[in-house]
Amino acid sequence: MKTVVMKFGGTSVATPEKIIGVAKRAIREKEKGHRVVIVVSAMGKTTDTLLALAGEISAEPSKREMDMLLATGEQVTISLLAMAFKSLGHEALSFTGWQAGIETESVPRNARIETIHTERLERVLDNGFICVVAGFQGVDRIGNITTLGRGGSDTTAVALAAALGADKCEIYTDVDGVYTSDPRSVTGARKLEQISYDEMLELANLGAGVLHPRAVEFAKNNKVPLSVRASYSDVPGTIIQEVITVEKNLIVRGVAFEPGIARVTVSYKKPFNGSLANIFTKLAEHHIDVDIIVQSITDEFPPSVSFSIKEESLEETKRVLNEFQENIRFSAANYEVGLSKVSIVGSGMVSNPGVAAQMFDILRVQGIPVKMVSTSEIKISVVVPETDMQAAANALHDAFGLSE
Amino acid sequence: MKTVVMKFGGTSVATPEKIIGVAKRAIREKEKGHRVVIVVSAMGKTTDTLLALAGEISAEPSKREMDMLLATGEQVTISLLAMAFKSLGHEALSFTGWQAGIETESVPRNARIETIHTERLERVLDNGFICVVAGFQGVDRIGNITTLGRGGSDTTAVALAAALGADKCEIYTDVDGVYTSDPRSVTGARKLEQISYDEMLELANLGAGVLHPRAVEFAKNNKVPLSVRASYSDVPGTIIQEVITVEKNLIVRGVAFEPGIARVTVSYKKPFNGSLANIFTKLAEHHIDVDIIVQSITDEFPPSVSFSIKEESLEETKRVLNEFQENIRFSAANYEVGLSKVSIVGSGMVSNPGVAAQMFDILRVQGIPVKMVSTSEIKISVVVPETDMQAAANALHDAFGLSE
Repeated sequence: MKTVVMKFGGTSVATPEKIIGVAKRAIREKEKGHRVVIVVSAMGKTTDTLLALAGEISAEPSKREMDMLLATGEQVTISLLAMAFKSLGHEALSFTGWQAGIETESVPRNARIETIHTERLERVLDNGFICVVAGFQGVDRIGNITTLGRGGSDTTAVALAAALGADKCEIYTDVDGVYTSDPRSVTGARKLEQISYDEMLELANLGAGVLHPRAVEFAKNNKVPLSVRASYSDVPGTIIQEVITVEKNLIVRGVAFEPGIARVTVSYKKPFNGSLANIFTKLAEHHIDVDIIVQSITDEFPPSVSFSIKEESLEETKRVLNEFQENIRFSAANYEVGLSKVSIVGSGMVSNPGVAAQMFDILRVQGIPVKMVSTSEIKISVVVPETDMQAAANALHDAFGLSE
Repeated sequence: MKTVVMKFGGTSVATPEKIIGVAKRAIREKEKGHRVVIVVSAMGKTTDTLLALAGEISAEPSKREMDMLLATGEQVTISLLAMAFKSLGHEALSFTGWQAGIETESVPRNARIETIHTERLERVLDNGFICVVAGFQGVDRIGNITTLGRGGSDTTAVALAAALGADKCEIYTDVDGVYTSDPRSVTGARKLEQISYDEMLELANLGAGVLHPRAVEFAKNNKVPLSVRASYSDVPGTIIQEVITVEKNLIVRGVAFEPGIARVTVSYKKPFNGSLANIFTKLAEHHIDVDIIVQSITDEFPPSVSFSIKEESLEETKRVLNEFQENIRFSAANYEVGLSKVSIVGSGMVSNPGVAAQMFDILRVQGIPVKMVSTSEIKISVVVPETDMQAAANALHDAFGLSE
């Protein structure tokens, strides 16, 4: 008997009608004779409503109590979905995170799953019930409700699939799969039939937005066969797995891009003396995510380091740099906004030298200036002006043979 | 160090502002050096909203899932209230029913509390935290969320007070105490300083509406010192306890009344032969609450029995009687609507014969016909036309010396 975990996000369960639709969809799997576990998020805008409510009480609400508050969102969905199954003649039981045995660290708002005690779910599944589990939430060892942070319901689904030894974990969402690039901006973008965990991880990290990186990492580490597909149609989605048959033998498998990037350049008073660590330690202490870092050690004076951040972190970054200028020991900082990051991703890159050169050449032909570069084994990212972002993505998508 | 349990109902926590008000009120108790436990209900109309949501999914939603759904209501309130305490500079932690160790029977929608495992609350209280506990909910032995039925939050408060050996349990509500009668209808009604558990129990059962009978019974059985007071003002409320100093030495302590009563009279085909049990068994099976039953065994033929029900149950009662007419073996049933029940309550009645006669005389003087009578040791109820209800209540209130 196969075990299937299906995850439906907030937009897929936004109304009672949609919840009944999700139940019908899951019943089709159940009727194939599978053991079925459904993981759901809070309905539509519930989380926003709860956040607003907390905001009326306190400007900086306790994180533990935020978890207590937010966890009600999925609890509403699971109860309604279980009711829907029953009204359609199928036995189902709902489970909150703690009832499903999802034990996490004691880190409010951003806990990682430590163990899943599957005894109760196993028993209920074996008795023929559909299990409806609240995504995004768990319980720490002393019984506090925790939440898993952004993309948490994806992680719940993958972790449950791993713990139950599921044959597949299907993430139902409002797009019908993983695309070579964002179809809203890149005309030739097309859906991938398959993609490797590592490629998906890079795309997820690059803001492709379909799946949360933590969930992909969990799937990779536990070899959970994952798929992303549409909740509104029956077309096959994208399968994410370890070994893939590369379609068309392409080196580049996807083009991701992200606007709203700022570049910060810091010049030192004297040659480099450990200040580099100081800067990034201070920024990390203030929860500012630094992405690309470029440090060129040359004889030029003064030496400098550049790094990219999200534009929304710029004010806070300026504040931190100014506050700790003495400590960090730099002489001047300048800032450039209106930038974007464009990346190409593909497992094949590692064995194909010259992909970066090819990328720069494509951008040069388009007259697009490259401000920063970052490379990994399966990814190359460049920072370019935001006004050139779409053109860069389209040109790369075409030139690397991704377009239909 | 004293322990105080304070309970605030739905209207007292209906908005974020009101929640902050509740926090301020409780902080005053905390600052007296007490250990403070707050029990809260769902905010305002939350429960209605959730019921409506369930109604969109299923006409007859699973009771287990209704509990799962409804329990989110108080969970929202406890998290917000704990946030409010923190924002006012006081340490507080929120607890759902299961986190507070409230173990109940496995009876969805109407579970009774079986045990309270107070270890965690005791520890947290001893560490100086204010404990905010979700009313109305608990958990059964296998980990299903249960709810306690109507008035459940009162019961949670009283049960916690008993389990923690609290020095007082204060029920904050939208009235400032227990009245001799409903001030909206009875002009002379005044607040009682004290009332006994038994009297309160009769008044609660008679629809005085301030406190749920189950909570009063729990308080009586566990000798929990209870008080009812206003959440919006500081005036002292009414203390409910075992032995009371009777003010003014009055025999009658309160007048309760309830409109919307119907009387059903069933005539048998032949002399009484066990049909009586049949009728009330069938009605109980269909969850129809029968209140007063009058059976006069005389030589008259055909024999008959009359009983009172709530008018809203009349259609269902007719259906049950018709369906089981053969089984119940009666020849005819007739129905009278537009009735009401008026009751006088007082512990002193038991040692004062003639109170009933006095009551009938007062009603006779007013020209009010008595349709049915029921007596207990500390209560006499009569069924009178609904149009006479208010006049009856006022006349009894005045004649028994309750008016100011």
